[in-house]
Amino acid sequence: MIKVGILHGAGYVGRKLIEQVLAHPAMRLDAVTSRSHENQPIWTAHSHLRGRTDLLFTANISSSSLDLVFVAAGHGQGAKAVCELLDKGFEGLIVDMSADFRIKDAATYQQRYGAPHPRPELLKTAWYGMPEITGPPPAGTRLIANPGCFASALSLALYPLSKAGITNKVAVTALTGASGSGAIAKDTTHFPSRNGNVKAYKVFEHQHEAEIDQMAPGVDYSFVPISGPWTDGIWGVAQLDLGAGSTLQIANLFQSAYGDCPLVRLWPDQLPELHYSVGSPFTDIGWIQKEGQVAIGFAIDNLLKGAASQAIQNVNLALGMDQTTGLLP
Amino acid sequence: MIKVGILHGAGYVGRKLIEQVLAHPAMRLDAVTSRSHENQPIWTAHSHLRGRTDLLFTANISSSSLDLVFVAAGHGQGAKAVCELLDKGFEGLIVDMSADFRIKDAATYQQRYGAPHPRPELLKTAWYGMPEITGPPPAGTRLIANPGCFASALSLALYPLSKAGITNKVAVTALTGASGSGAIAKDTTHFPSRNGNVKAYKVFEHQHEAEIDQMAPGVDYSFVPISGPWTDGIWGVAQLDLGAGSTLQIANLFQSAYGDCPLVRLWPDQLPELHYSVGSPFTDIGWIQKEGQVAIGFAIDNLLKGAASQAIQNVNLALGMDQTTGLLP
Amino acid sequence: MIKVGILHGAGYVGRKLIEQVLAHPAMRLDAVTSRSHENQPIWTAHSHLRGRTDLLFTANISSSSLDLVFVAAGHGQGAKAVCELLDKGFEGLIVDMSADFRIKDAATYQQRYGAPHPRPELLKTAWYGMPEITGPPPAGTRLIANPGCFASALSLALYPLSKAGITNKVAVTALTGASGSGAIAKDTTHFPSRNGNVKAYKVFEHQHEAEIDQMAPGVDYSFVPISGPWTDGIWGVAQLDLGAGSTLQIANLFQSAYGDCPLVRLWPDQLPELHYSVGSPFTDIGWIQKEGQVAIGFAIDNLLKGAASQAIQNVNLALGMDQTTGLLP
Amino acid sequence: MIKVGILHGAGYVGRKLIEQVLAHPAMRLDAVTSRSHENQPIWTAHSHLRGRTDLLFTANISSSSLDLVFVAAGHGQGAKAVCELLDKGFEGLIVDMSADFRIKDAATYQQRYGAPHPRPELLKTAWYGMPEITGPPPAGTRLIANPGCFASALSLALYPLSKAGITNKVAVTALTGASGSGAIAKDTTHFPSRNGNVKAYKVFEHQHEAEIDQMAPGVDYSFVPISGPWTDGIWGVAQLDLGAGSTLQIANLFQSAYGDCPLVRLWPDQLPELHYSVGSPFTDIGWIQKEGQVAIGFAIDNLLKGAASQAIQNVNLALGMDQTTGLLP
Repeated sequence: MIKVGILHGAGYVGRKLIEQVLAHPAMRLDAVTSRSHENQPIWTAHSHLRGRTDLLFTANISSSSLDLVFVAAGHGQGAKAVCELLDKGFEGLIVDMSADFRIKDAATYQQRYGAPHPRPELLKTAWYGMPEITGPPPAGTRLIANPGCFASALSLALYPLSKAGITNKVAVTALTGASGSGAIAKDTTHFPSRNGNVKAYKVFEHQHEAEIDQMAPGVDYSFVPISGPWTDGIWGVAQLDLGAGSTLQIANLFQSAYGDCPLVRLWPDQLPELHYSVGSPFTDIGWIQKEGQVAIGFAIDNLLKGAASQAIQNVNLALGMDQTTGLLP
Repeated sequence: MIKVGILHGAGYVGRKLIEQVLAHPAMRLDAVTSRSHENQPIWTAHSHLRGRTDLLFTANISSSSLDLVFVAAGHGQGAKAVCELLDKGFEGLIVDMSADFRIKDAATYQQRYGAPHPRPELLKTAWYGMPEITGPPPAGTRLIANPGCFASALSLALYPLSKAGITNKVAVTALTGASGSGAIAKDTTHFPSRNGNVKAYKVFEHQHEAEIDQMAPGVDYSFVPISGPWTDGIWGVAQLDLGAGSTLQIANLFQSAYGDCPLVRLWPDQLPELHYSVGSPFTDIGWIQKEGQVAIGFAIDNLLKGAASQAIQNVNLALGMDQTTGLLP
Repeated sequence: MIKVGILHGAGYVGRKLIEQVLAHPAMRLDAVTSRSHENQPIWTAHSHLRGRTDLLFTANISSSSLDLVFVAAGHGQGAKAVCELLDKGFEGLIVDMSADFRIKDAATYQQRYGAPHPRPELLKTAWYGMPEITGPPPAGTRLIANPGCFASALSLALYPLSKAGITNKVAVTALTGASGSGAIAKDTTHFPSRNGNVKAYKVFEHQHEAEIDQMAPGVDYSFVPISGPWTDGIWGVAQLDLGAGSTLQIANLFQSAYGDCPLVRLWPDQLPELHYSVGSPFTDIGWIQKEGQVAIGFAIDNLLKGAASQAIQNVNLALGMDQTTGLLP
Repeated sequence: MIKVGILHGAGYVGRKLIEQVLAHPAMRLDAVTSRSHENQPIWTAHSHLRGRTDLLFTANISSSSLDLVFVAAGHGQGAKAVCELLDKGFEGLIVDMSADFRIKDAATYQQRYGAPHPRPELLKTAWYGMPEITGPPPAGTRLIANPGCFASALSLALYPLSKAGITNKVAVTALTGASGSGAIAKDTTHFPSRNGNVKAYKVFEHQHEAEIDQMAPGVDYSFVPISGPWTDGIWGVAQLDLGAGSTLQIANLFQSAYGDCPLVRLWPDQLPELHYSVGSPFTDIGWIQKEGQVAIGFAIDNLLKGAASQAIQNVNLALGMDQTTGLLP
């Protein structure tokens, strides 16, 4: 059994990681940290987990006894925790869920996140990716930078266009649920403001664009991110015009890119609904092509394929297992 | 035209008061204060009001030019604002939306709100009530203490029982929407926690019980308050057992109490739905009686009959108008 | 007072028309028909209207005593009702809320709605439009074809581009609430399917496109219509790329088109939220322009600007009143 | 492996049974019937299950090859399907999810469901129950009648009172999500009517009362069932007054009744939130006792403990497994 620790486990990403690890046949959850819940049962932060684990939150982990550590912290905090682990000589696998090691270029990181990168020398050794696009982490990977939620969704929708060298303008509109904002109450998740409302934010400047540029290079897209009135899930649509005379079949691009991927479901001639993927590790992608005009619809669970189940996929491959282990029965 | 000011008008009660005053044929909105939005248009806090008023928030009001001031503050803050108005010699009518002058007994206030009453000598002169139960404010009323939202709903449901001297145990369960928690984001209104959830709070110890005891004395009720997953509205049901042999007709109590009330709608042999009253100044009350067992259902808009439209009713009567002026076309 | 009748008034458009007419200072609601609710009070279909009107539904109207009739029927049924009115010699103003007289070209109607137009000769005399784009109905107008909900929203967003002769590709994504599907339960409005879900439909082939083509000719847009998980309101975004070197200021187009329109609110450098317009007769339009890339956000209440309040605007102008009469205090 | 068939598997109970069987380590899903989806993949009815099973719906099952059949039909239809199975000589275990074999007394069945029982002679051999109250099905059980959703919730809340012989009046108010109404769209689940609404129905006459009377005999309760604006989950509260001088500790009753039950979670001195149990096989029960006044809060997932996971618990025990097999990791 792989002995697992989760740092900063009282938030939503931590919650999903705990669930995933508990359900994983080859993993054993040994430690979850939370300063605010130190010495309290896991269920004091995640009530629905009562009866599933008796573990208590701790303030720190004893990393020497662990094989795998997930860092479920926000950006800035993520790099700090990773460095502490490395400095203490941790020799297992680290998965950083924060944004801190995702962007290969330290200058871009600074521009997107407003502060210099805390440990730019580690950017070279960190592996960033998702199996459907990058394949598995290379042998010897010790630090995985797990992709962001919008980044995962848009990268998967745009990567086949990138692979095919399509340079037509692509207009992407995508909506995310409120769990994407985390477990701390804020104005944008205040129920009376969120319920029955639709609100665009960071139009043309979402920080995940830097990740998408790495995964789907060359695609000329614009992106309008939107807050939607639900809890879990990202749904989006990418529109492009191939021109009425185009003979390109969008279907071929997606079949070719994802035909062998067990966690991508393709929906030809229709756009998937958000419901299909909520609560699941799947990415749903569909398309409609009409006289050159194309709509590509995509949906993921922002906390699963957009965070926790993607991390499990990456870890499964890094440790030599099937990528679906613990994710599909 | 009655010249109106609203203190602390950037919250939800302030918002509804602004709407009500703008729609009132005999009122003119002259001033709305908000320290956080000073010198900004009203619509910077209440976006949907753009195009309906050009007024700017101010930090203070010039009370000498006003006939009527609503104080839309929280408890503690309400008494402070009222006292400042009186100390400055304001001679018009004050409506305090806070809890500060609702409870006649200063000791009860302290017990319920955890602090001594800031100006107990004013408790005698403040008038607390709602037209359907107490009738209009007496001539010369200068300070109206407007009832709380749950207090309004439960008092209207229980008052006919009180009037009839019914002492049977009454079990009340009532749910409120998230706007009842105000405009500031908090844990209990965090969308992922509120959406699709039901949560009881302050079971058997809601602070509004002190008001209900004033409006429906003698009724032996227990009260489970609940947070429901919607924005506006309070819905509740009161159950009591009259005994299988009882000849009492609940219908008579409600018809007799509210038959002449233009803003109460009675629903015999059914419980009203929450939707009926949301967005309206009405109180909806219905009942089902079966072999001595009684269910009384009730619904109000927590920000209207539970706050702003009730205040308008009270003011209309205090100033000699029909109580429905500005509330019904 | 203008004496008003509403045909097929038990649905959602009928509901909003009843509310608007009751609130209109120059109108008197004389008759509302519904075969399913014949001889029953209006509130048996629209519970929240109890206490606001004592009118009963009738099976038919006596049109000779009316000045204005709204036909709140579906397509096919609308033309039938209009023709009956005209055949009976009704000489007042008719507003058809259905799609039947919106499209000037009978062949296009047949293609979009799947059946030949029932009375093509009337297409010439019917006036279709909305004040912000077409100006007021010409003198002598007897039949107004009121625009569809998505048609209103998209036309208002795209018309300034049409006016400016912009031919760049425009990708429109817009979401509508469930009330747009009407009062009859259907699969797409089944709560478990709609709640927390996002679903595209009629991608690139929504029937309202024929209307938009009339209101914003020349604009090369693609349209992905979406069902969103809320009750009221349409929110959308149109993306276009003017090219990095463009000197065109989108702001100028919208200021110039709508600067004088009392029921359009412009939001420079931001996209409006859906909440702003729900429950109001306003159209909210905002934009963000960044290095040639443009996002135009728009929002309306689908039953108000997308149906009932638009009808009132049109009638106000046809009858010589200010377009905002009964819509703004 | 236990070979499993599911009859009428295109609805919501069928959906959850499919999920539970796929996740069960000792079960293999061999057949699912649906006349409307014959020969189509399971995911044509349950989109989110694509990629989890390749099974097609069939019109009928070959029962001779099965060990266990779930009948996921409505009342009336359930008995018919059970009888057909028995008439064909099926020798495995049958679990009827319908109401048809729940009520021991045929006359009560007729009164509650409005038709005579189709096969009253089978009522004697059917076993009705839930492990926490009745213990496991006796050896040789061939037909399990699975309890209803409200019946499960209320029985679990009231059974400890029954066991303790408490005869005080108990007022129960409980709310259910829209999935309790099934997969077919109906007026009560029309999104605009359900969203943001609360609606009582079948007050004092819910058909599940007959089941509750079997599980918690002697308890004098009244029950107001309510439709709430969410998809999954039942939440309720039972209020009773023990009298100020009572020395009875409600905590003892629940600890004693359920202390050993792995799928009941007790919450002393608080009422559980609905969220805790949604998506889980747990029953959550909590209580607050104050000067003789008691509130007992309870929550289950209506499609899990209220249907599918309860069925799995019953089957696990009938087949000699631990009751949590396949339900907890």
